[in-house]
Amino acid sequence: MRIRMIPREGNFFDYLGRQAENLTKAAAFFKQAVSDGKLAEGEIKKIRELEHEGDTLAHEITDLLNRTFITPIDREDIYSLANSLDDVLDLLNAMAGRIKLYKLQPGDEYFAQFIDLIDQAAAAVCSAMKYLPDDKKRTRVLDYCIEINRLENMGDSVREKAIGGLFEHEKAPMAVIKWKEIYETAEGALDKCEYVAKVIEGILVKHG
Amino acid sequence: MRIRMIPREGNFFDYLGRQAENLTKAAAFFKQAVSDGKLAEGEIKKIRELEHEGDTLAHEITDLLNRTFITPIDREDIYSLANSLDDVLDLLNAMAGRIKLYKLQPGDEYFAQFIDLIDQAAAAVCSAMKYLPDDKKRTRVLDYCIEINRLENMGDSVREKAIGGLFEHEKAPMAVIKWKEIYETAEGALDKCEYVAKVIEGILVKHG
Amino acid sequence: MRIRMIPREGNFFDYLGRQAENLTKAAAFFKQAVSDGKLAEGEIKKIRELEHEGDTLAHEITDLLNRTFITPIDREDIYSLANSLDDVLDLLNAMAGRIKLYKLQPGDEYFAQFIDLIDQAAAAVCSAMKYLPDDKKRTRVLDYCIEINRLENMGDSVREKAIGGLFEHEKAPMAVIKWKEIYETAEGALDKCEYVAKVIEGILVKHG
Repeated sequence: MRIRMIPREGNFFDYLGRQAENLTKAAAFFKQAVSDGKLAEGEIKKIRELEHEGDTLAHEITDLLNRTFITPIDREDIYSLANSLDDVLDLLNAMAGRIKLYKLQPGDEYFAQFIDLIDQAAAAVCSAMKYLPDDKKRTRVLDYCIEINRLENMGDSVREKAIGGLFEHEKAPMAVIKWKEIYETAEGALDKCEYVAKVIEGILVKHG
Repeated sequence: MRIRMIPREGNFFDYLGRQAENLTKAAAFFKQAVSDGKLAEGEIKKIRELEHEGDTLAHEITDLLNRTFITPIDREDIYSLANSLDDVLDLLNAMAGRIKLYKLQPGDEYFAQFIDLIDQAAAAVCSAMKYLPDDKKRTRVLDYCIEINRLENMGDSVREKAIGGLFEHEKAPMAVIKWKEIYETAEGALDKCEYVAKVIEGILVKHG
Repeated sequence: MRIRMIPREGNFFDYLGRQAENLTKAAAFFKQAVSDGKLAEGEIKKIRELEHEGDTLAHEITDLLNRTFITPIDREDIYSLANSLDDVLDLLNAMAGRIKLYKLQPGDEYFAQFIDLIDQAAAAVCSAMKYLPDDKKRTRVLDYCIEINRLENMGDSVREKAIGGLFEHEKAPMAVIKWKEIYETAEGALDKCEYVAKVIEGILVKHG
């Protein structure tokens, strides 16, 4: 097979930054949307649209990566960041979809805590991505990574309390099955944010 | 440690093609087997045998990859394709095993829809793999990838309806737990087919 | 961005060996801890501490990898081994946490069989890692890999029996949900050990 490569640096940081911004926008919108204890049909649709925009951005980054010979940071790292940012938004969208499918009221206390943590983690991811190309902002980027780790740890204790409470108080197995999935999806979104932080820390070490 | 590498191109396309054919065979057999609303012991065994053959092929590809210095396409892509094709068949085999373990009747309407989508997706994967080495068949290969994406999207709506219906109509929590797992495994098989399409699209871009 | 690389071989085998030893220690401790059919608060804490030590080791390996230019084996393989060893210990720790959270008695027969298999698999992983740098011990390392595969296969049949039994005998859906998760986590730990064996076999082929 022939090989076609364009030997120039693509503007990957730009793309990744836009992807992170889109994620932050979706997380902030989700948090605001459920703040009244409900999630309207139009709000679910809006989250799905942001998820589609994220898909398009992720696809463009992968495409650019496949056509670029020299990259400013390791190819695998760009690929990991694009995919993980995409995954976080997929999980947010899946949560919104499940709330509708399972006819749940998102006024649940633990769910609100999760959405708040995800909103904060997404904002920290976005800031870390923004300052990543700037060598003088290393400490700042690292601080955001530490913050993301802290939020993920908080998510672990929310999940412990949420799932523990589910088995303690909830009498209906169906509700347990539904909420357990929602909580685990929320925790998965925080785990993915932590993974993004891990990749960023690796990039900082390599370019230290 | 010493390094031993054979500096020649292995016949990777040949191996991957055989792996895709084996998967297609298993998917078609599964579909035919459950068409009478049952899954006999001998049919489960046959699927398990095809899964073992798939394991052997995947192992041979990885082995060849480890011993080959120059590859016709990126090493990671060969590795991803071999592993993902293997994963799809693993999931099919897991579904067959769960149907037996959970004593389910595979006459379920949504299950039939899933198996039909997987059968079509496997066939499209097989065709895409077949034409991939031929530079003149780029458009055709891309069409198969688009088709696989379409089938995966259809799988998403089948799952929505299937799981929604489960919580709506099913009174027994045990049955919900069992079928939910089966549906999610089926959806996972379609997701993996979509991932294969994504890797193939990446290969086409790199060698465009 | 600037690039800083130290062009020397890091002592990766040493680190990976320590990580495998830490895992083996945790698995052996877990097995011993539940041998009386209980899991005390202090024992859960001890497993969590070993998991934290594992985290630190995995982090140090990744860090060293990012700062090292020439590695004795492929970078991806070092990364895969460090992450997978870390994952096994994470899953052990998750199991201990769930037993507490779900207020389960770990005297369950199938759970005991799983812990025994994980203990054996961890010991085999540790031995394989120990002899891996020694070219004269190839056959021995391969034997440990075969042993790990055998243990993972045994885990598959334990899970079949365990989950089958759960749906057959257990009347309470809540208990089914809890134990199904524990069994699947245990099986996941064995799967990760098998993945470690697969990476090791790949290393042996490349340096054959």
